[in-house]
Amino acid sequence: MDRDSLELRTTVTADGTLRLELQPVTLPEPGPGQLLVRVEAAPINPSDLGLMFGPADMETLAWDGQALTARIPPAVMASMRARIDQPLVPGNEGAGTVIAAGPDQQHLLGKRVAMLGGSMYAKLRLIAAGDCLVLPEGAGAEEGAALFVNPMTALGFVETMRAEGHSAIVHAPAASNLGQMLVRICKAGGIGLVNIVRSPRQVALLRDLGAEHVVDSSSDSFRDDLTQAITATGATLSFDAIGGGEMTSIVLTAMETVAQGKMESYDRYGSAVLKQGYIYGVLDTGPTILRRGFGFSWSVGGWLLFRALQKLDPAVIGRMHQRILAEMTTTFASHYTARVTLEQALQPETVAAYLRKATGEKYLITP
Amino acid sequence: MDRDSLELRTTVTADGTLRLELQPVTLPEPGPGQLLVRVEAAPINPSDLGLMFGPADMETLAWDGQALTARIPPAVMASMRARIDQPLVPGNEGAGTVIAAGPDQQHLLGKRVAMLGGSMYAKLRLIAAGDCLVLPEGAGAEEGAALFVNPMTALGFVETMRAEGHSAIVHAPAASNLGQMLVRICKAGGIGLVNIVRSPRQVALLRDLGAEHVVDSSSDSFRDDLTQAITATGATLSFDAIGGGEMTSIVLTAMETVAQGKMESYDRYGSAVLKQGYIYGVLDTGPTILRRGFGFSWSVGGWLLFRALQKLDPAVIGRMHQRILAEMTTTFASHYTARVTLEQALQPETVAAYLRKATGEKYLITP
Repeated sequence: MDRDSLELRTTVTADGTLRLELQPVTLPEPGPGQLLVRVEAAPINPSDLGLMFGPADMETLAWDGQALTARIPPAVMASMRARIDQPLVPGNEGAGTVIAAGPDQQHLLGKRVAMLGGSMYAKLRLIAAGDCLVLPEGAGAEEGAALFVNPMTALGFVETMRAEGHSAIVHAPAASNLGQMLVRICKAGGIGLVNIVRSPRQVALLRDLGAEHVVDSSSDSFRDDLTQAITATGATLSFDAIGGGEMTSIVLTAMETVAQGKMESYDRYGSAVLKQGYIYGVLDTGPTILRRGFGFSWSVGGWLLFRALQKLDPAVIGRMHQRILAEMTTTFASHYTARVTLEQALQPETVAAYLRKATGEKYLITP
Repeated sequence: MDRDSLELRTTVTADGTLRLELQPVTLPEPGPGQLLVRVEAAPINPSDLGLMFGPADMETLAWDGQALTARIPPAVMASMRARIDQPLVPGNEGAGTVIAAGPDQQHLLGKRVAMLGGSMYAKLRLIAAGDCLVLPEGAGAEEGAALFVNPMTALGFVETMRAEGHSAIVHAPAASNLGQMLVRICKAGGIGLVNIVRSPRQVALLRDLGAEHVVDSSSDSFRDDLTQAITATGATLSFDAIGGGEMTSIVLTAMETVAQGKMESYDRYGSAVLKQGYIYGVLDTGPTILRRGFGFSWSVGGWLLFRALQKLDPAVIGRMHQRILAEMTTTFASHYTARVTLEQALQPETVAAYLRKATGEKYLITP
């Protein structure tokens, strides 16, 4: 039957086990406003890994013949209570072809769409038409697979910058697919951007895209280079996907050094310039360390795409969508290291590869 | 001459030395809008210690016969550049008697005033009349010495709470003079307040003042007690004078536990409830450690009295001043452990005593 699907499910059980397995399921016919889409491509984003593996101890990852399992440390089971015994299907976004449609959506039959809304790691996805963007004629599924999370995040950074009265951005780590989009957006918009990367190779990568300020955190002169780039751009806002460690603290300290350089007299409370650091990812799950040598005018907070979008005018979001479609093969193009099927996505050696989360390496699931 | 003063000066020299000494100085006659005040009492607040001793290494404190000196570690001298060779007079606030006044301020001659504006550790202070509050007839200098920093900070917390849409407050450490004022203010205003203290003795102290929620961070059940008090009050805002370590992180984690308890379904990004932690002091100068187990809706930032006041309507500030004067011997009464002269304030053994910054121990300089 053409409504038979296969889903990748992640479940936490009360005994502290994480279980990932494929499960056959038959989906209902699409109702009014709904589409049934054959998923053709869905990226593995860092945010998807959070749902797939939660806080499991990856050292205990094992294949039991049917499922991939791992132990969850007792200390973190408290935060998992609400997940116990609920099978969840990861995959924030993807693209595919509409194979069935609700009575009011028949005009979309056969169209290729980009989707946002979770549960994409499956053969089929029943989804609200409102959560889809119809791709231009001839667009491939891979081109449409990642048109929401990274593009909307990069555009969202700029919206937050404007809404909160800043004029330039510091981004770390900046060589990711998202970082590359941000380089193109800021270049097109004349917005100052300081890119923090982790190697000379990544410096070259971003310079080739036309990035003006690229600083290498592996360099001995990192802090001086950072201060210089912040001086040049006037950035007082940063977005940090690392989360753990000192990156945001180092950035705020450099911003304060620049601000103090412009002060006419000493103020023991530091500059009055508000330095805002947002943490939008958890590449490093360790604690965030703030060495508060940046006065009292500072703020560090979490930034989450869908909560940031809720603060925007729907018309602004509509314009963001239109721009993403118009520039899907240029500004918002993503690059993938490898393509894996649903079955391959659960093989321990494949898991080890995409869990490395190396910048510039990105996996695509092609169910 | 009755305009001869003696000032306590703190100076950083280019070779990395901090120098504290008394310096005779003759002040000019007060001009229009100005008062010359004989300083009779000025508290040593934690914020004053920051200016007095900066980032000097207290292990190197020595008396050279004329001045108290200490070494400043080379690593922090960069942040001291703007202070080099500028003698600064500490003392944010104080009270005294007007001994001379500008031509338009003659009606204030002989009055006792409370003052804000720095440079109070001196025999005399030339000050703008606008930076003074005239004390009620018969009020003592000690009663008026600390009517700005702590009272305005405690009232400022409540204003920030209202302005940012929160309904209750967590305060740490809560047994200080400031904490006691906050207990009285919140009790009078029906505002939920969670007091975090550091010993059973301090629990008793605040309970005696009528505090409802007092949790002891030295207790084994601290985190559970904190979660329970946050449940009872609905607090989503905290003020932390410790700064270093994990206190703010622990508070935000407890707030998130409470918020997740009210969620109907699991959300890997945590609750949507914004948890705001403000750091308003540096009792612990070590790094702030954030264990980000509290989702993505959080913010931690610096809070500084005079910058918070700048955001308020002047009429609101006027009402705060009137309330402080009206309740100066009740809500806003301070208690002092010891009184020292300017000369005594520079004796190494006295310095060691007031540097301990023990909660509930407060020194008053009586020039």
